[in-house]
Amino acid sequence: MHNILARRASLVKASEIREILKVTENSDIISFAGGLPAPELFPVEEMKTVCQAILAEDGMKALQYSTTEGYKPLREMIAGRMRALSIAAQSEDILITTGSQQGLDLSGKVLLDEGDGVICESPTYLAAINAFKVYSPNFIEIAMDEQGMRMDELETALEHNHRIKCIYTIPDFQNPTGRTMSLERRKKLIELANRFAVMVIEDNPYGELRFSGDRLPPVKSFDTEGRVIYQSTFSKVLTPGIRVGWICAAPEIMQKYVVFKQGTDLHTSTFSQMQVNKFVELFDIEEHVSKIRQVYRRRRDCMLEAIRREFPDYVTYTEPEGGLFLWITLPAVINARDVLLSCLQQKVAFVPGGAFFPNGGHENTLRLNFSNMTEARIVEGIGRMAGILKECKNTAAES
Amino acid sequence: MHNILARRASLVKASEIREILKVTENSDIISFAGGLPAPELFPVEEMKTVCQAILAEDGMKALQYSTTEGYKPLREMIAGRMRALSIAAQSEDILITTGSQQGLDLSGKVLLDEGDGVICESPTYLAAINAFKVYSPNFIEIAMDEQGMRMDELETALEHNHRIKCIYTIPDFQNPTGRTMSLERRKKLIELANRFAVMVIEDNPYGELRFSGDRLPPVKSFDTEGRVIYQSTFSKVLTPGIRVGWICAAPEIMQKYVVFKQGTDLHTSTFSQMQVNKFVELFDIEEHVSKIRQVYRRRRDCMLEAIRREFPDYVTYTEPEGGLFLWITLPAVINARDVLLSCLQQKVAFVPGGAFFPNGGHENTLRLNFSNMTEARIVEGIGRMAGILKECKNTAAES
Repeated sequence: MHNILARRASLVKASEIREILKVTENSDIISFAGGLPAPELFPVEEMKTVCQAILAEDGMKALQYSTTEGYKPLREMIAGRMRALSIAAQSEDILITTGSQQGLDLSGKVLLDEGDGVICESPTYLAAINAFKVYSPNFIEIAMDEQGMRMDELETALEHNHRIKCIYTIPDFQNPTGRTMSLERRKKLIELANRFAVMVIEDNPYGELRFSGDRLPPVKSFDTEGRVIYQSTFSKVLTPGIRVGWICAAPEIMQKYVVFKQGTDLHTSTFSQMQVNKFVELFDIEEHVSKIRQVYRRRRDCMLEAIRREFPDYVTYTEPEGGLFLWITLPAVINARDVLLSCLQQKVAFVPGGAFFPNGGHENTLRLNFSNMTEARIVEGIGRMAGILKECKNTAAES
Repeated sequence: MHNILARRASLVKASEIREILKVTENSDIISFAGGLPAPELFPVEEMKTVCQAILAEDGMKALQYSTTEGYKPLREMIAGRMRALSIAAQSEDILITTGSQQGLDLSGKVLLDEGDGVICESPTYLAAINAFKVYSPNFIEIAMDEQGMRMDELETALEHNHRIKCIYTIPDFQNPTGRTMSLERRKKLIELANRFAVMVIEDNPYGELRFSGDRLPPVKSFDTEGRVIYQSTFSKVLTPGIRVGWICAAPEIMQKYVVFKQGTDLHTSTFSQMQVNKFVELFDIEEHVSKIRQVYRRRRDCMLEAIRREFPDYVTYTEPEGGLFLWITLPAVINARDVLLSCLQQKVAFVPGGAFFPNGGHENTLRLNFSNMTEARIVEGIGRMAGILKECKNTAAES
């Protein structure tokens, strides 16, 4: 059977970590793995009203096939939200996607030939690596600091690599580090993209979840040449289970996205699209997001305090101003996969950081999610982790 | 901007016909284009009950991320339905897809390298051509007759092409011809697939919509080597707008589908999956499908009678035992695209057949859909088409 598969099938492997983390589905595990929103904040009651309204007002339409581009009123609403971020968008510039993950697959389809270069932050979003890998690119990782992707390294990479097609970035509360790209670097990024004639994929699922500091304009808001493919989702501000995301891009390239989207799944669930649109019509989404922000801010604070109090000094961590994640760096002698195995015995889970580096290495890092556990469980889980980390260091020192 | 695109972006073009047919969204057009189920048969009232039950019983789960493989109770229910078709399937053999279109994209990802051969019926499903084209295969078309794909031609093709990866077939009420593959040929197909060690993609969206004659076992029911990837959908028996389909395949290859599905859209809408499952739990889906069958049978009969009565003798047509479509062949001198332009002036639409042949040609063919228009509109539309066809022949004869 093996020789019947496409070559790319051997490039993309089932994640060993994913298999290990399947145990986190048990509710007795304190899980800092995954990137799940807090389900207790989902607007379940409001969704009852939303579903009844859709089916009463437009039931046949909600259950029928619809256009690949997406439900027009939803595209108009999203374009309005884009304009509020200083992105000059009309509904025609919006393509609805089946979650923002589909945006990544479509970008791979539209942009990447085998061997093309994709520049990304180091580390970067695990599932973006998997989405792009299907199209066999080379990944060029650019180091980050507290201001996000380093522009000096980006410039050097662009000068030395002549097959670069795009720069993939998550400027706001990046997954996995929680870091945010500074305003100055956003402007520099678009200047470099224009100078070297490459595309930018700006992935912004977390931008609305800012707990402190000032909101920064998206890279796309500085785009004068149609170089930025902006993508986002309702997963983190409303609900992820219904899979509604979008792409905002210039008309010439949008055409290609639409054609590939059609071959990929015809269109995103009509019902899901109408759910999002009707929710925004009937309820106050800003107020809803503000509630999410408050809860996540407390959880982040709680996790950071516990880490400060409990973790050994040689552990460093990021202090994100928003989003769902923070990033831990251990001494180089400690392997986060080993830490995970010990933690799982004490019913605590997280994702080892190695998987977020497309070219490997960095096994002494890990990602913690703070959105999905109560404060009490966060304190308990960080406490258990701290005990294990202290032991790991001792073991490493002895060996 | 042009050199920034992947090579495949130039292979897949926006369909000119699709643009022309956008006018069919106006309700004053009698449309035999598209493949839309009859929306008046959608269980809108039942869906109200379904949505309330899901949100009341399991609201947080319905709105949360879920596993790539799909919602377990739905996979179990589908496996049961597979077993009723003599396919030995367990829930582990089922992957939920975002409509059955996604199954085609995933098959392309898992199986096809550039230049690999895909064998298909001639003509075949337009959107399967587009899904596979992304992976740059060669299409080898096999002629059909009233028994479906011709096995003598298939055997010859397999003998002469050494890079064939798979045979794509729609054995039941094929799109676009409405033809059904005979039992004998189904057995021969699997025998040839085994002998030449190629995979079979069996696409069966219409199998439950049989109006007359005996149900035939799927090709997959004869599969002893895990060679058949069976795919189907709830689009034609329940509702297409919520995008729930599935793949049934052997464990070794299923692993690969799951990994690629994860990169493609993480998972299919949790809410949609629960909608399908809850509908089947609370209502009688067999009774619902039986209602659909009755209405479509009458529409098919009505269309065939009108064609017999009105169309000129030199037009030939298929007489399908089920499904949504029938297939028209005009004299070689008549181009169906010209006929379409004349028909649109009289507010009648259909899809010219050329697009269903991956290697082109056959411009004297066309597809008619009978599921989406009332009997009165079918009679009216066929009458208008008949007038135009008579004129076309005269014009062709004069020139």
